[in-house]
Amino acid sequence: MRVGFIGLGHMGGPMSANILAAGHDLVVHDVRAEAAAGLLAAGAAWAGSPRETGAGRDVVITMLPTPRHVADVLLGQDGLLDGLAPGAVWVDMSTSVPEVAERVMAMAGPRHVAVVDAPVSGMAAGAKAGSLQIFVGGAAADYQRIRPVLEAMGDPGRILHVGGNGAGYTVKLMINLLWFGHLAATAEVLTVGVRAGVDLAMLRRCLLASPAASNFLERDVLSVLERGDYDDSFALALACKDLGLAVDLARQAGVPAEVSALVEQIYRRARAQYGDDGGEMLPIRLLEDLTATALRLPQE
Amino acid sequence: MRVGFIGLGHMGGPMSANILAAGHDLVVHDVRAEAAAGLLAAGAAWAGSPRETGAGRDVVITMLPTPRHVADVLLGQDGLLDGLAPGAVWVDMSTSVPEVAERVMAMAGPRHVAVVDAPVSGMAAGAKAGSLQIFVGGAAADYQRIRPVLEAMGDPGRILHVGGNGAGYTVKLMINLLWFGHLAATAEVLTVGVRAGVDLAMLRRCLLASPAASNFLERDVLSVLERGDYDDSFALALACKDLGLAVDLARQAGVPAEVSALVEQIYRRARAQYGDDGGEMLPIRLLEDLTATALRLPQE
Amino acid sequence: MRVGFIGLGHMGGPMSANILAAGHDLVVHDVRAEAAAGLLAAGAAWAGSPRETGAGRDVVITMLPTPRHVADVLLGQDGLLDGLAPGAVWVDMSTSVPEVAERVMAMAGPRHVAVVDAPVSGMAAGAKAGSLQIFVGGAAADYQRIRPVLEAMGDPGRILHVGGNGAGYTVKLMINLLWFGHLAATAEVLTVGVRAGVDLAMLRRCLLASPAASNFLERDVLSVLERGDYDDSFALALACKDLGLAVDLARQAGVPAEVSALVEQIYRRARAQYGDDGGEMLPIRLLEDLTATALRLPQE
Amino acid sequence: MRVGFIGLGHMGGPMSANILAAGHDLVVHDVRAEAAAGLLAAGAAWAGSPRETGAGRDVVITMLPTPRHVADVLLGQDGLLDGLAPGAVWVDMSTSVPEVAERVMAMAGPRHVAVVDAPVSGMAAGAKAGSLQIFVGGAAADYQRIRPVLEAMGDPGRILHVGGNGAGYTVKLMINLLWFGHLAATAEVLTVGVRAGVDLAMLRRCLLASPAASNFLERDVLSVLERGDYDDSFALALACKDLGLAVDLARQAGVPAEVSALVEQIYRRARAQYGDDGGEMLPIRLLEDLTATALRLPQE
Repeated sequence: MRVGFIGLGHMGGPMSANILAAGHDLVVHDVRAEAAAGLLAAGAAWAGSPRETGAGRDVVITMLPTPRHVADVLLGQDGLLDGLAPGAVWVDMSTSVPEVAERVMAMAGPRHVAVVDAPVSGMAAGAKAGSLQIFVGGAAADYQRIRPVLEAMGDPGRILHVGGNGAGYTVKLMINLLWFGHLAATAEVLTVGVRAGVDLAMLRRCLLASPAASNFLERDVLSVLERGDYDDSFALALACKDLGLAVDLARQAGVPAEVSALVEQIYRRARAQYGDDGGEMLPIRLLEDLTATALRLPQE
Repeated sequence: MRVGFIGLGHMGGPMSANILAAGHDLVVHDVRAEAAAGLLAAGAAWAGSPRETGAGRDVVITMLPTPRHVADVLLGQDGLLDGLAPGAVWVDMSTSVPEVAERVMAMAGPRHVAVVDAPVSGMAAGAKAGSLQIFVGGAAADYQRIRPVLEAMGDPGRILHVGGNGAGYTVKLMINLLWFGHLAATAEVLTVGVRAGVDLAMLRRCLLASPAASNFLERDVLSVLERGDYDDSFALALACKDLGLAVDLARQAGVPAEVSALVEQIYRRARAQYGDDGGEMLPIRLLEDLTATALRLPQE
Repeated sequence: MRVGFIGLGHMGGPMSANILAAGHDLVVHDVRAEAAAGLLAAGAAWAGSPRETGAGRDVVITMLPTPRHVADVLLGQDGLLDGLAPGAVWVDMSTSVPEVAERVMAMAGPRHVAVVDAPVSGMAAGAKAGSLQIFVGGAAADYQRIRPVLEAMGDPGRILHVGGNGAGYTVKLMINLLWFGHLAATAEVLTVGVRAGVDLAMLRRCLLASPAASNFLERDVLSVLERGDYDDSFALALACKDLGLAVDLARQAGVPAEVSALVEQIYRRARAQYGDDGGEMLPIRLLEDLTATALRLPQE
Repeated sequence: MRVGFIGLGHMGGPMSANILAAGHDLVVHDVRAEAAAGLLAAGAAWAGSPRETGAGRDVVITMLPTPRHVADVLLGQDGLLDGLAPGAVWVDMSTSVPEVAERVMAMAGPRHVAVVDAPVSGMAAGAKAGSLQIFVGGAAADYQRIRPVLEAMGDPGRILHVGGNGAGYTVKLMINLLWFGHLAATAEVLTVGVRAGVDLAMLRRCLLASPAASNFLERDVLSVLERGDYDDSFALALACKDLGLAVDLARQAGVPAEVSALVEQIYRRARAQYGDDGGEMLPIRLLEDLTATALRLPQE
């Protein structure tokens, strides 16, 4: 297929490389032209603007930092929407909220341009390996058309058509929101238990054997508990961005969401304390530092 | 063994019946004498006060509604502590905080009375079946001495010695606290997702396949999602009591716990809205009612 | 002066009428052309687009519902920015966040168009009376140039130059945020006190004589306490919008703001419960309804 | 009058000295006998236990750190209640919750002992000066009988009979709770405003001229803003204790109180960060430290 790709960052770079490697014809664009060097060497073509990127393409993918960037790339001057021909599909793989896609769709419909949202899970490692999980929102026919391109980037068994337009964005944000909520609640429970004198390993064992068990407690928290590693595959600046979008989505959906709003603030406190680049586990350390308690399992 | 039992409610009643059935010699007491009728008919003896209950007993168990009741039964007039002989063990199976046991221990030590906390999970059904999970806090030797009595009430594989005095209380409260936190966070995520247009079954499937998976989402929430049953094996009044104790424990442990404090208030809102006897799942309904959204999976 | 005005709603309508009445030359625009009928009859001219509104004007004022509307009117197709001549001043009197103005300024600077933010307090009544309070952010020279126009709309003694660009937006949002916070905290205190058995008048008297006294408790809450009137001069939909902008501003400023985030959710709960058009005092009623307690002073 | 006084700390010490100086006959008790030295030298008599303190007294006052201490002194071994004769009045001037007094009253009634709660505002300075504000809860006749003793400790114009038993406790706790709430909300608003670029003096001026004005912003916050003095007349440990009691009272009153519960946690965070003895303004510094922003007015 003739594919365009805009946004060649630490996710978009390896994703577009995988598209090229799968044999698709690829045109790329980024505000930082140097980000495209490797791709051009590998056979991709350069487009000077979002609009140019759309010209003659079957599918154009965007992978951008924020909804504002998406809006600017689509609707701004020399924007992508003006470059797409009738029958083309715009696939937004950014983590975003349905609101932007709705604005684009209002203009895309009359031009017979299809719109699909397809955000991903799996971090940079998954992007490189081509094993991303992908949540697709849009019409079933559009999903079928673009699936070959998605399969170049993701694990076929984990590319899911989750609903109509916007459903992909929503599913992605809700997964992250719930995970962050698990982290915040678990951090309090572990710290209280240990400060009250219970052995951390025993406490965790009892929790895992109880109805309060979770994936987070069983697996993800281990980097902290075993190695004091607060991770940084998902930096606090990014976590705060996603939490902000999730709380924005709750606003738009008309759902008062006290716990989610509080979890966002806790993450923003961690970011203020430990910096933008700190790992996504650092809200746990907020409590460790305040109470002078290291949540560490004994090493074997 | 010569066992005493104080507190013959919907938990203590079947628990003491199982002790009797296991062949132990049993003396019982309750503020409501009629609660003992069945036990007396089955061979237990009656004691007129907590103090009398302790006379000549190897082990005396209390199963009482609140820490205040525990303090009154132990330390009040004609209290249990005055009735226990040197070498006896007091086992508190109530859900409580370490603070009360510490006050009792300060007085029990010089009298050579041992103190153990052993709160339970498993509800009235587990109490009847003798399959409770039991978290024991206290000295290892005391734990060994009373284990035969505990095995009359609980599943041998799930009777755990979790640490020193107070550790049992703490583990029990932390399990409940984390479960309530999972409920509150999950309720928001499901409601936002559905209100934003995602199919509930698909949303749940994606969450369960993600790092945000939990026992709560996989199993416990199903009573609501499949049958609109907010359960009532664990009434809101009791849930609020336990949350209050957990937040009190965080205070005593010196751990600021924003999420836990908020979850307590959400449960107290549900209690004010739906009454003391409503089920422990009703905080989910707060959001359903506010947003006119029923979180129901299609019936098969 | 030659003035343009975009946004002729329940605030912008009377504000522009006062500008006309003060003798300025006025061109107006609104997405709903009929909103301009009265103004045209009184001598204003009509412009067919934001761009046209800017043509040949010294000052153009926008008074729009949300930052998005401001961005669209300024930067969209046939946008105002393209219509303004060098030397003109754009004055945004909308309640907004500094972010939009910063985007506009980046483009306005090279064109020698000045940007000023000047949001208002005082509701529709103040708009009609020409007695608004106005918080002006921008360069001092620009403030001096537009002050005659502002004096047509506001109380001269309460038109304040509060700082550089964005300062007006910020001051306006912080005033509202603190007032909403006072409401939420006071509602809890009054409800707890009355439910604990204290006479409402005595409780209020003691609070007013204490360091916890506030304008809100002394004056604004009286509509509820004396008449059960939850007011509606500032509807819940609008209050939620302003709270959302204030929390967004906290995000942009890098300040974790737990209390503010919670207050926003409480307002959003009131909105879900009582509707968009309900009055700004209704979060008080959430607690009254939950506890079956009317917070009413005896009538004299 | 024949007066007894139990609890000779930094409040109770000067309060009892003022009673003695006013010419009343005084018997005192404290767990630390040395705390009575000055009083005994000035003519007071010593009692060896709470019970002895009550013997032959018309009025016995308690001024103790926590509700638990009050319960122990009244109801414990050699407790005050056993020492009071029919017709005597027990006046609890501690900051406490109605719950303890209710337990005492249930036993005091049959003995014809009257119970009054009379907590104070005004700190150690007010205690020394005899200018405390006193909130009295109890029967009107009892209030009249003890008023001469209260006038030895407080400003006659600020000794208020605020309602039946428990009303004094409630009013005192609600005043503190609202003040702490004002502090937490104001800290966020000032920090966001300053971080967003507004001059602190201008921001405060606008807030004070708005409906969001408060005593806290006008007067109490000045120690921080003018001198960077977080005060310490009301240490964080004490503030946390009072907030805990206020939240407990909300529980007992059946009022969900999200804002209050959050404010308690913020204070507990400040205590964990800055220590038990830090001043009551330190939650402001939490935000200053996190954002590297000193909220200081220019010195004149």
